[in-house]
Amino acid sequence: MQDGHDVSSSPAHPAAARGARAAESGSRLDLWLDSYAARTRGMTASEIRALFAVASRPEVVSLAGGMPYLQALPLDVVGASLARLVAERGTVALQYGSGQGDPGLRERILDVMAPNRVSAHPDDIVVTTGSQQALDLVTRIFVDPGDVVVAEAPSYVGALGVFRSYQADVVHVPMDADGLIPEALNQTLTDLRRAGRRVKLLYTVPNHHNPAGVSLSAARRPEIVRIAERFGVLILEDDPYGLLGFDGDPRPALHSLNPDGVIYLGSFSKTFAPGFRVGWAVAPHAVREKLVLASEASILCPSSFSQLAVHSYLQDHDWKHQIGVFRDIYRERRDATLDALGDMMSSASWNVPDGGFYVWVKLPGGLDAKTMLPRAVTQRVAYVPGTAFYADDQGRDHLRLSYCYPTPERIREGIRRLASVIDAELEIQSTFGPHTPSSGRPGSRPVYAPAPDLT
Amino acid sequence: MQDGHDVSSSPAHPAAARGARAAESGSRLDLWLDSYAARTRGMTASEIRALFAVASRPEVVSLAGGMPYLQALPLDVVGASLARLVAERGTVALQYGSGQGDPGLRERILDVMAPNRVSAHPDDIVVTTGSQQALDLVTRIFVDPGDVVVAEAPSYVGALGVFRSYQADVVHVPMDADGLIPEALNQTLTDLRRAGRRVKLLYTVPNHHNPAGVSLSAARRPEIVRIAERFGVLILEDDPYGLLGFDGDPRPALHSLNPDGVIYLGSFSKTFAPGFRVGWAVAPHAVREKLVLASEASILCPSSFSQLAVHSYLQDHDWKHQIGVFRDIYRERRDATLDALGDMMSSASWNVPDGGFYVWVKLPGGLDAKTMLPRAVTQRVAYVPGTAFYADDQGRDHLRLSYCYPTPERIREGIRRLASVIDAELEIQSTFGPHTPSSGRPGSRPVYAPAPDLT
Repeated sequence: MQDGHDVSSSPAHPAAARGARAAESGSRLDLWLDSYAARTRGMTASEIRALFAVASRPEVVSLAGGMPYLQALPLDVVGASLARLVAERGTVALQYGSGQGDPGLRERILDVMAPNRVSAHPDDIVVTTGSQQALDLVTRIFVDPGDVVVAEAPSYVGALGVFRSYQADVVHVPMDADGLIPEALNQTLTDLRRAGRRVKLLYTVPNHHNPAGVSLSAARRPEIVRIAERFGVLILEDDPYGLLGFDGDPRPALHSLNPDGVIYLGSFSKTFAPGFRVGWAVAPHAVREKLVLASEASILCPSSFSQLAVHSYLQDHDWKHQIGVFRDIYRERRDATLDALGDMMSSASWNVPDGGFYVWVKLPGGLDAKTMLPRAVTQRVAYVPGTAFYADDQGRDHLRLSYCYPTPERIREGIRRLASVIDAELEIQSTFGPHTPSSGRPGSRPVYAPAPDLT
Repeated sequence: MQDGHDVSSSPAHPAAARGARAAESGSRLDLWLDSYAARTRGMTASEIRALFAVASRPEVVSLAGGMPYLQALPLDVVGASLARLVAERGTVALQYGSGQGDPGLRERILDVMAPNRVSAHPDDIVVTTGSQQALDLVTRIFVDPGDVVVAEAPSYVGALGVFRSYQADVVHVPMDADGLIPEALNQTLTDLRRAGRRVKLLYTVPNHHNPAGVSLSAARRPEIVRIAERFGVLILEDDPYGLLGFDGDPRPALHSLNPDGVIYLGSFSKTFAPGFRVGWAVAPHAVREKLVLASEASILCPSSFSQLAVHSYLQDHDWKHQIGVFRDIYRERRDATLDALGDMMSSASWNVPDGGFYVWVKLPGGLDAKTMLPRAVTQRVAYVPGTAFYADDQGRDHLRLSYCYPTPERIREGIRRLASVIDAELEIQSTFGPHTPSSGRPGSRPVYAPAPDLT
């Protein structure tokens, strides 16, 4: 869909008008251009999608995607477990299931959440098609167009996409090395209340944040919960990385501090396998009922096979040990990333992630990460420009590096390439002056993240 | 959420107001009652859900659910095929995939659609989490609140749920034994245009309709397509049962008559296994792009494992033969249903389905199928009341019988029980006069269908 077309005009498509419209749009003919819903106006393909298609070539070191390193999984155990599942419970695994999700899996999910001290009853859990669907369902039942969602600056790109698709206004609140800043949250909510805005959700990734790599400190957790409660704002706590911390015990979830005021989202995508698309939401009772109805309208029921596959894996395998294996791998890669950055990219600055998949890098000399991306891909290294993680115009001088998938050697090579691109950029800049921003269209969303499979 | 609450009031929840609100609502406390989106008002749990929970007990013959008879699948073949998949392509099957769906599966889907003469390029296909998600995505990108969706009377309950969740107004068009009536469609679209309404979609199940059991005749297909084209209305052709006809060759899809004016939805749920949740949409190029973006916002990507599992099955097994096996089973059960109805329920009337899963029964003497349901469940037989299949107040004197899952003996026993309930109702009515309608609340949606797993 092209910008500027009036979607409220006549629903009929007289043939005569088609040619004109096609010529106007300057691209492929879309007979249904005038029929789209208002919410569809915000859905545009990423300008950098084509670039990431190139970035998925094997000669490119991709530090862009958030794919877990599945080579570390015991595939023989998984295969045997699935064969047994089909033999023993095949007609259940292949059949429709309940909209809320398999009761046996919901029971098991309690164990998975225990280290983060989320305590719940299996009835409080809704199984979803990855936690992305949980984000979608929560937004669907709470957000009217023009409602405000408060979110960290920066925020997970997939959540921003959901909020945008329901025409929410995202207002960012700054973070520091200890995560979301309580005073800033309080100020933002005060300002929004004064402005008469309806704030529906506080969206937060408190553990090993994507993309910022930081965690909300233990001291701040009760403060954040109290502020949200005082303003009557529901917290949407997204916790895919909660078990992937490198130091110390997992921190207590915000949910543990106020179960009535928090919807907690979990996922097996980072601790087992994203290919099954199994995530979940824990929600207050009445909200949970709405989530189930919304999920039934959306997909009827989550995949029985996927749910029982995950359930079998949790039963047949020492999944806690396996998470330890993943943690060790990712810690080693985090270290390789930090070492390489220190050795080769000292003009930039970055945080030290205490878990998860990501380092958040600030470029030197006001370089623009999006403008630089084509040159980086030409030099066979890919990353995600910082602008992807904001609903507004922030993030140009930042980029996200993912260390989860490539080996330490590849990471080092990728950062070597990136450092040389940055040095060349800085040299050009010192000779010709700074670049102009790459996107001049006011209000246009400059960049989307790649799909997670593009590494 | 309770009816009559003002969702546009203050977003804050001072503790003092909570008790009052809970008392007002007369049920469980919902702290977030004032926070829901407008679209969530239409989401209420079915009044008959509890009844269907009872109906799922083994002593009840359920003629309610639409579960395929998976006992007829070669589970050994499926198990072996999955074990091989994990061994050979495990790290792909367990990983994230593309938002549009696996290219290999999309290629295979072309073969599956060939009998219905849907011709497309793999690029035109979007793989979805069951065709329910395709219904959701199409509605999401096209329907603004208050837009009209024209649909058959009756219509698939899951589609009505999606349309309702996007605040569409559904306008029904009558069918007869040859399916949707072209003259009636023409008249309805003329009236809607005169009334200045925006009609976004014509939703139709042309083959072996759920719940009506009829198919759109070959002669009417080009007429329907022409009328929709003349009014500039996009056709949403939902075809889960297209390969499950009992007589003759599959009919050409509406899509084959005008690919630019039709979105075609297919599914593996009825021809293979619903537990993988794999369906698809074929759409005009520009629409397909929007569907992919909407799907990425909604679930990131469909399950790689499910897609590759279906792909392996199509490759390793004679799936066409298997569909023939299913057809023979369902034909035998259709015959058992019709025989039993003829023998024991001659006061009612019904159609003769030419494929699919359902018989649509009209009750005698103005009996109300919803009022009668509790008595039927007490007599250990379950069905879906006709009101579930209308967005308006029609259908009270109809019910849907599903013959797909129970054996012919159980079908016969179920219909024997149902006939005795009907006879008793007729006797009560002849003694005390007709029942009052079961739902007096104007505008309330009287009934929802059970989840498909409740048999």
